Amino acid sequence: MVESTLLYAQSGGVTAVINATASGVITEARRRKIKVLAARNGILGALREELIDTSKESVAAIAALAHTPGGAFGSCRVKLKSLEADRARYERLLDVLKAHHVRWFLYNGGNDSADTAWKVSQLAQAFGYPLTCVGVPKTIDNDLAVTDTCPGFGSAAKYTAVSVREAALDVAAMAETSTKVFVYEAMGRHAGWLAAAAGLAGATPDEAPHIILFPERAYDEAVFLAQVDKVVKRVGYCVVVASEGIRSADGRFVADAGGGTDAFGHAQLGGVASYLAGKVKDALGYKVHWALPDYLQRSARHIASKNDWAQAQAVGKAAVQYALKGMNAVMPVIVRSADAPYRWKIEPAPLSKVANHEKTMPPSFIRKDGFGITAKARTYLAPLIKGEAPLPYGSDGLPKYVTLKNVAIKKKLPAWEG
Amino acid sequence: MVESTLLYAQSGGVTAVINATASGVITEARRRKIKVLAARNGILGALREELIDTSKESVAAIAALAHTPGGAFGSCRVKLKSLEADRARYERLLDVLKAHHVRWFLYNGGNDSADTAWKVSQLAQAFGYPLTCVGVPKTIDNDLAVTDTCPGFGSAAKYTAVSVREAALDVAAMAETSTKVFVYEAMGRHAGWLAAAAGLAGATPDEAPHIILFPERAYDEAVFLAQVDKVVKRVGYCVVVASEGIRSADGRFVADAGGGTDAFGHAQLGGVASYLAGKVKDALGYKVHWALPDYLQRSARHIASKNDWAQAQAVGKAAVQYALKGMNAVMPVIVRSADAPYRWKIEPAPLSKVANHEKTMPPSFIRKDGFGITAKARTYLAPLIKGEAPLPYGSDGLPKYVTLKNVAIKKKLPAWEG
Repeated sequence: MVESTLLYAQSGGVTAVINATASGVITEARRRKIKVLAARNGILGALREELIDTSKESVAAIAALAHTPGGAFGSCRVKLKSLEADRARYERLLDVLKAHHVRWFLYNGGNDSADTAWKVSQLAQAFGYPLTCVGVPKTIDNDLAVTDTCPGFGSAAKYTAVSVREAALDVAAMAETSTKVFVYEAMGRHAGWLAAAAGLAGATPDEAPHIILFPERAYDEAVFLAQVDKVVKRVGYCVVVASEGIRSADGRFVADAGGGTDAFGHAQLGGVASYLAGKVKDALGYKVHWALPDYLQRSARHIASKNDWAQAQAVGKAAVQYALKGMNAVMPVIVRSADAPYRWKIEPAPLSKVANHEKTMPPSFIRKDGFGITAKARTYLAPLIKGEAPLPYGSDGLPKYVTLKNVAIKKKLPAWEG
Repeated sequence: MVESTLLYAQSGGVTAVINATASGVITEARRRKIKVLAARNGILGALREELIDTSKESVAAIAALAHTPGGAFGSCRVKLKSLEADRARYERLLDVLKAHHVRWFLYNGGNDSADTAWKVSQLAQAFGYPLTCVGVPKTIDNDLAVTDTCPGFGSAAKYTAVSVREAALDVAAMAETSTKVFVYEAMGRHAGWLAAAAGLAGATPDEAPHIILFPERAYDEAVFLAQVDKVVKRVGYCVVVASEGIRSADGRFVADAGGGTDAFGHAQLGGVASYLAGKVKDALGYKVHWALPDYLQRSARHIASKNDWAQAQAVGKAAVQYALKGMNAVMPVIVRSADAPYRWKIEPAPLSKVANHEKTMPPSFIRKDGFGITAKARTYLAPLIKGEAPLPYGSDGLPKYVTLKNVAIKKKLPAWEG
């Protein structure tokens, strides 16, 4: 009898805790004597038949995986289109799954990945191939529907709140003769969740961040600049947190406006923070600094949230349990039962309800003036950054992150020309 | 009998551990029953007679100060010129010191501050005022002469190495279909120490960072771009760490070239990372991301080095001891007696030897091709990021940083119009 296998794949932008989910998947599957294959570079590896045999990894390595940021098997930004438009790729995927006796497919990603997992589950049914397909949530953007929060968000949120509080102490100390306005750019695409988390760094109007710019509110330059000036005059300095996805009233991304050209006519890559800093300097004349933490904010395992870390592992474990029960086309989601003390549990939700929805900040979470978060938002966000996730450090002063062996299993199919 | 006092002032850019030095100063002075005044906003507060009475702070607050980043009394970017050119300010300073019976003046800063402290010590002698003036080292740039390292550097170095390692794991996971080149911009002014510290994140040529750009070597665009391309082709991606102070062979700062104008003709603030990212994209066509951590790197107490933290406190304690012994115009410096295990002690050095010197990376620390650090550099840098400095977190998931009361003492002099 051939051994049925479970295929796990990571998709989209990685996080500080997506490997904790992978560790949860592998640990639970091992407990149940199920062999786990991992696709190299996400869905691409599944299509190319580049499958990693995770049984080659030691128990210690899988344990260390739980505290290693990045995506240990590789991820990718490849979105499969509709079944009709991308039929060849879906069929190739099924061929690979069949060839390696994959009976359980776990796809760990955001909105797009939930959609892909849902389509794969439909196709397998249509072809009569007995596959159980489970989506596993992940995104620092926190924009997945149904789930209370998304694994990866809490840690990025904690990084954001801690970094903004620390930088604000620096700015406060120097404002008299140096930088008066500091702009911090947060990721989050079309959702302001991560920028909102910065709001946890301060509790009163005079505490940083003094201004948060959300993609959910139209950016009005005159109103923004007037607010910056008001804060500087009242507090002595102003800390601004801007979401990368803010847009003006006409729908244009502010970040696009920031992309000018340098003295040689070459494209000058620019973001929101750089753009806003330039505006403040031009219009108000204040000395400005800005920070663009970029990938640092989504890979900072060293300042991960313990709750987020626990949830990342829990969704991995639950995904295996759902898969083995044959619960097709579901996703383990986080359900909150209490705010303080924070209580949560994992429950299955239909993938169709998660796929392609984008959960942005509700209006009740954004202050009337558009520049801060409400008490309701604080209640929601506060538990997500709580607790410090354990992390072993080496004698060299660096976190002990693991590099897996990632041994590929032998291919059985002809090469794929996709 | 009037009570003699000790005046402590912070100067220049603050660090993750300059308050640890302040805590060391106050703790040692309290032990010796000496009253400590702190200048608000550095030398400005001394000139304006804005002096904080630190005896109003609780023991717990001074203990918490040791793990709070930023500059608790305020710092400033004000450099006093020569005694001749700035005579009025030096004399005002002496008036304030006299009015408040300051017999010991501790000036906590970098090169410029060592120079100012030295000048104040000369002037006091010339005027026959019995003042003992001690410089206290601080700078994340690590560019002070004489001392083995500078308090503040080790923590910024640890932040840099950890952040680059974490971001590199992210880039590695996504490189197949997303970002292939990641550029991280490090502070350091004219010295490459902080960029060099990123080198501790990887040990072999294929481990990130793959390219480090030092201000000590002329930036050659063609050679740089060729190296990036080579690394991407060999490793699959390339992580670049660039010092903010790199210059082309003609001496021009690369960062200056990055400052173009946006679509509206306004000044576009830009840095080295943004500039290099644009070049890589234009010339090689790779998808590029870049990070500019800015103040985050010098305020990240949450990832401070234990050795750095211990040294920051030790120089504060020693400065008080030197001052009370009447050792005028000295600075407590760090002397290394062994690399591994790292052994160090504090010794006095003449301020005149520290003032206005700038210690850049020696050629023997930079790899022949100019893109990495040597074994000798590793031996020097390794102990500086070792150990994790304890940090209490609140139940809210944020570090417990203290805000001092900062109660000013009563002014005795007419207002200063400087």
